[in-house]
Amino acid sequence: MHFDLEATDGHARAGTLTTAHSTIQTPVFMPVGTVGSVKSLDAHDMTDILDAKIILGNTYHLYLRPGDEVVHTMGGLHGFTQYDRSFLTDSGGFQAFSLSDISKADKDGITFKSHIDGSTHYFTPEKVLDIQGNLGSDIMMILDDLVALPATKERIALSIERTTQWAKRSILYHRANQAQGKAQEQNIFAIIQGGTDPEFRRISATQLCEMDFDGFAIGGLSVGEPNQAMYDTVELTTPLMPTHKPRYLMGVGTPEDLVENVKRGVDMFDCVMPTRNARNGTLFTSFGKLNIKAARFQTDELPIDPACDCFTCKRYSRSYLSHLYRARELTFFRLASLHNLHYYLGLMKQMRQAILVGKFEGFYREFYAKRA
Amino acid sequence: MHFDLEATDGHARAGTLTTAHSTIQTPVFMPVGTVGSVKSLDAHDMTDILDAKIILGNTYHLYLRPGDEVVHTMGGLHGFTQYDRSFLTDSGGFQAFSLSDISKADKDGITFKSHIDGSTHYFTPEKVLDIQGNLGSDIMMILDDLVALPATKERIALSIERTTQWAKRSILYHRANQAQGKAQEQNIFAIIQGGTDPEFRRISATQLCEMDFDGFAIGGLSVGEPNQAMYDTVELTTPLMPTHKPRYLMGVGTPEDLVENVKRGVDMFDCVMPTRNARNGTLFTSFGKLNIKAARFQTDELPIDPACDCFTCKRYSRSYLSHLYRARELTFFRLASLHNLHYYLGLMKQMRQAILVGKFEGFYREFYAKRA
Repeated sequence: MHFDLEATDGHARAGTLTTAHSTIQTPVFMPVGTVGSVKSLDAHDMTDILDAKIILGNTYHLYLRPGDEVVHTMGGLHGFTQYDRSFLTDSGGFQAFSLSDISKADKDGITFKSHIDGSTHYFTPEKVLDIQGNLGSDIMMILDDLVALPATKERIALSIERTTQWAKRSILYHRANQAQGKAQEQNIFAIIQGGTDPEFRRISATQLCEMDFDGFAIGGLSVGEPNQAMYDTVELTTPLMPTHKPRYLMGVGTPEDLVENVKRGVDMFDCVMPTRNARNGTLFTSFGKLNIKAARFQTDELPIDPACDCFTCKRYSRSYLSHLYRARELTFFRLASLHNLHYYLGLMKQMRQAILVGKFEGFYREFYAKRA
Repeated sequence: MHFDLEATDGHARAGTLTTAHSTIQTPVFMPVGTVGSVKSLDAHDMTDILDAKIILGNTYHLYLRPGDEVVHTMGGLHGFTQYDRSFLTDSGGFQAFSLSDISKADKDGITFKSHIDGSTHYFTPEKVLDIQGNLGSDIMMILDDLVALPATKERIALSIERTTQWAKRSILYHRANQAQGKAQEQNIFAIIQGGTDPEFRRISATQLCEMDFDGFAIGGLSVGEPNQAMYDTVELTTPLMPTHKPRYLMGVGTPEDLVENVKRGVDMFDCVMPTRNARNGTLFTSFGKLNIKAARFQTDELPIDPACDCFTCKRYSRSYLSHLYRARELTFFRLASLHNLHYYLGLMKQMRQAILVGKFEGFYREFYAKRA
């Protein structure tokens, strides 16, 4: 993997990330393909219609169903899903923590019960890399120790310490695998934790960034804290991260969140928001959100966003989409997801272009002016 | 509308039906677009991926939601859905009869309650043509008087008589509209009733076929009777129908039903089976049905049908599709529907080709040999 930083404008960065499967221009938004499919879309939609260069797969989900061994047998995520560009897979820790009724961390890993059949499983730093090895993702995330907030200072301190210990085990294990000729095309990112506490973030970032990871993520945000707390935390963390490695803000966010965090030096994002909102009838536009359920759209001949050139806006009226939504027709979910993801991917392209020409501040003002 | 009969082979027929919106080669299968969308697919799927030349819309559903006036305002079904080829719409009578808790026929029409909100509505022969006028379909079906079987001979006799009376009113009304410059591009088909009783079928066919309809349908079959009874009824009815007008067997059927009824001289079919079965994980192939739920497909690298060149079979393995089905991923429903409709449309093409070269019997034997 190579990361070339092409331009900076203030703290905002434009770069190019090259994996064994695709060339990714940053800042980039990664659509979430939970179980090996971006919800309601197929690989052809992701490449030929949306031209997404990288998507995210959820290790927890794929491990439980169909099982990482099945995915491995079928040629890894690339062979299995036929999406031939890049995959980033998370560690599975977040879902083990949030979807399982019972999850418990100890010094070696996380015990959890499957949300599908209640069976018990144990994720260790090494185990989640083995799983991601089977999945064959281009970027693997390491296991981190998450804590439910609010938590005591002691518990947060323990989380930071464990996250660092697990990071050491992860990189040792990964480099040893590579020395044996395995996981050659796979890259490994660490995850900075510490909630919104500046001191914990500083400790976590400093400890992790000393290690030779291929990139670094900021985790544990967008979990209910005020937006400004997220922005402030990112702002204090990015300067602690290496300049010449990609920076990934996990699970973020709204269009405003993307703009604010690109401004603060983040290169990569993922979020279920564009696809989840699509399924709820909430559509993103250059002038803000639009709820297709509103009665006024029933005879509205305009596309979702007259300024949008996506697959859906080139073809269908708000009237037709409003009808499909009311009738719960499955094709609505695809058409709305195509629109929302096109909006997210387009927003990233606009920011990149502005950074490359040194006009990010102008872009930033215009972005908010259009939604006023 | 023009219908050119190009070739016959035994009773099987190949023709070309030309409407204001498309040229349709027969025999033809019409995918069902219930509420103005073939379930899980959009207009682009129907044209650019499946190349379907005609689809069916359900008058009952569209009348209730979004309402035929809304569809009219948005440019009729062609403008509203952006499917720019031909639409056939049914009369709404069948759904008023089957979906409504309360439906009641009198000499002038059918009273029913909406399955959506319980509101009361009244369909007359003229009213359903007005609705279909608003929908702007290329082929309109007239209202017929359906009876729940088993029924007394007296009730069936009344149904036949009413169907003929309503047919007279329908054609008078339609031709009067056309004389006033309305519905110029719309065509009108009558529906032969009579259950599986040869005498009732003969009476109904004779009475209706004396009138100047643009085409004729055989209704009231595929409602639970034995297959052979359907085939026998079609076999005695088609010789009573005009040679130079299209013959449409409503709501039929399985691949075997299509083959058997093309053999008996039917030109047009519609059925929810390919899309409904797709949603249940049942896939059609040249060697019979395949249930993607079966455990053996979980690591099967083959496409659904190695002999199939559809969008789905060119890309995805049974393994991946089996996973998507188990995970209830929405994209499965689209991929499976694309496959099943491709199979149905392809089967019709194969039959047409065989008829054109006088080799329908050979096709027929091979069709069954492959499934043996």
